[in-house]
Amino acid sequence: MTNFTPGPSQLYFTVQDHVKKAFRDGVPSLSHRSKQFESIFAEATQGLRQLLGVPDDYDIVFAGSATEIWERSIQNLVLEKSYHLVNGAFSKRFFEIAIQLKKKAEKSEVHAGQSFEAIAVPAGSELIAVTHNETSTGVSLSTEWIHSLKASNPSCLVVVDAVSSLPYPALDYSRIDSVFFSIQKGFGLPAGLGVWMVNRACLERAEKMLSQEISIGSYHSLPLLVSNAHKNQTPETPNVLGIYLLGKVVQDFLQKGIHAIRKETEYKAAILYQALEAHALINPSVLNKKDRSKTVIVAETGAHTERLTSHLQTHGFSPGEGYGELRKSQLRFANFPAHSKEQFEGLVDALASFQ
Amino acid sequence: MTNFTPGPSQLYFTVQDHVKKAFRDGVPSLSHRSKQFESIFAEATQGLRQLLGVPDDYDIVFAGSATEIWERSIQNLVLEKSYHLVNGAFSKRFFEIAIQLKKKAEKSEVHAGQSFEAIAVPAGSELIAVTHNETSTGVSLSTEWIHSLKASNPSCLVVVDAVSSLPYPALDYSRIDSVFFSIQKGFGLPAGLGVWMVNRACLERAEKMLSQEISIGSYHSLPLLVSNAHKNQTPETPNVLGIYLLGKVVQDFLQKGIHAIRKETEYKAAILYQALEAHALINPSVLNKKDRSKTVIVAETGAHTERLTSHLQTHGFSPGEGYGELRKSQLRFANFPAHSKEQFEGLVDALASFQ
Repeated sequence: MTNFTPGPSQLYFTVQDHVKKAFRDGVPSLSHRSKQFESIFAEATQGLRQLLGVPDDYDIVFAGSATEIWERSIQNLVLEKSYHLVNGAFSKRFFEIAIQLKKKAEKSEVHAGQSFEAIAVPAGSELIAVTHNETSTGVSLSTEWIHSLKASNPSCLVVVDAVSSLPYPALDYSRIDSVFFSIQKGFGLPAGLGVWMVNRACLERAEKMLSQEISIGSYHSLPLLVSNAHKNQTPETPNVLGIYLLGKVVQDFLQKGIHAIRKETEYKAAILYQALEAHALINPSVLNKKDRSKTVIVAETGAHTERLTSHLQTHGFSPGEGYGELRKSQLRFANFPAHSKEQFEGLVDALASFQ
Repeated sequence: MTNFTPGPSQLYFTVQDHVKKAFRDGVPSLSHRSKQFESIFAEATQGLRQLLGVPDDYDIVFAGSATEIWERSIQNLVLEKSYHLVNGAFSKRFFEIAIQLKKKAEKSEVHAGQSFEAIAVPAGSELIAVTHNETSTGVSLSTEWIHSLKASNPSCLVVVDAVSSLPYPALDYSRIDSVFFSIQKGFGLPAGLGVWMVNRACLERAEKMLSQEISIGSYHSLPLLVSNAHKNQTPETPNVLGIYLLGKVVQDFLQKGIHAIRKETEYKAAILYQALEAHALINPSVLNKKDRSKTVIVAETGAHTERLTSHLQTHGFSPGEGYGELRKSQLRFANFPAHSKEQFEGLVDALASFQ
């Protein structure tokens, strides 16, 4: 059964072999203060730099989940005021976390299934939080649009949630300040690790708050995470196996090449959207073509949802439910590197045979 | 090679088989909102209740690490003032985290290698933080002494760090308020999960702070962790595989029986301390017998440290280094359920043949 839920999703096909080797080599028992751990840390972070084109003035650190990185971003980068672009459940949760941390958070909100036009960032905003790919609705913002935020708001840190899109988007890291993701989505790994990439401006912001005696947390404050990362270490005993597996899958992705991964992603998205458009009973959920996510494809399945789910399952394809209330009328299909062209072609055939 | 480092340590012997079954059953790809995940969560938490005798008025929730639980404990349970019993590097770090979170933290500090006599808890303290087993020095506080803290300080929450001792100590949960540990020590699992057990008084404290508009964090606030746990869920996508493996190893421990595990722990500790005392060149590091940890046994190895390490390694035993600066003059030996009687008997023989 191929799993199309948008995370945790299908594992990348090499993961189980990497797990076997990890156990053979004693990785789960390694001290996180050993040289071997430092090599594992370096393989993962240097591999990510190479794969995604992350420049030298960025640091790469690890947290327990992308949810934790929502919290740490607000805690370390916002003294008073953050601004959030909300177009679904996950971008909304980032906003709500800022409220829970007692910040003056403001938002520009559009309906689920839509993207943003011109936005007016309130004066005094220190950070713009933008979700590249809304996993709940299947709307993706264009990278050009995200890159343009910085030019109009030079004093804001632009923080990009790329949880369910990386490694697909070719981001220009010089025109944003921070990006994060979790490994159980596009990287096809077991859940339990978030990856946080930050530039110097983020670090300076956190250090400034620290010097003003403002609490920015403890073991996972950005300065402590970064100073440990410079030694290829972590402040606490981390998910060592998760970091090891990330490093190995990143090597596999490098072997395949980021260009091939991106091309395949586009091919798979194109044939699935085409199948949805051609279908008599179901449709793409996102109406505006330019807003349609390449990595989480949402189908409007209405009254056919339950029957279609069974139909696909008998063909070996397990679709993801719609998010929240929409589970009765939508299905979601993750399109990650773990999902092969052949699996997508099979999925498209199975959809075509549904009537 | 048997790994005696006190965490990450030797894996429990069943772990690799459980990992194989997890992959066969698709556990790493499971949605954390699925019924299957709820069963996994329930198996782990109900198993822990049974194994450790955790009463019904406690909730069991998960964090990324025990380090995170230090932070969450302070954030959720202390409005202004915490009190810390410091006798080594880890109990000190708990204290420092309270300072980093801008609390008025006070401490009673004794030298490394010692335990506490009578303590005077400052008026207004809301929480007493006590480390059952100081992993850095091999000092364990008696459970009777820990249980007595509550009677003399009824208004304080008594929070017990049992990171490197559980499942060994038979705690009386009615005379403490919170206990936590991480799974890479006594439970013999890969790192990446902390387990936090809290009673109603802890939850009420956190809820009171929340009602006073004090920030207690966001996705990992205690009320949110607990309300999710009541549905056998977690606020974020957690380390699903870690929770699954914990549940399985807890079942293995239940099969063996907590009584047998405790007896074996005491037997293994007894023969190792005896070997250290009988040795001409090395000694137990903790002088006072009543303070000696059963689960992390520290040897004073002085100028023989490097040569002894090599000697043990040629016999298939990898000792843990001394903590921090003491790595040149001490060795540490974890005594967890993953370490068999036979391995300890072999270790003792190898020590005896060192001259």
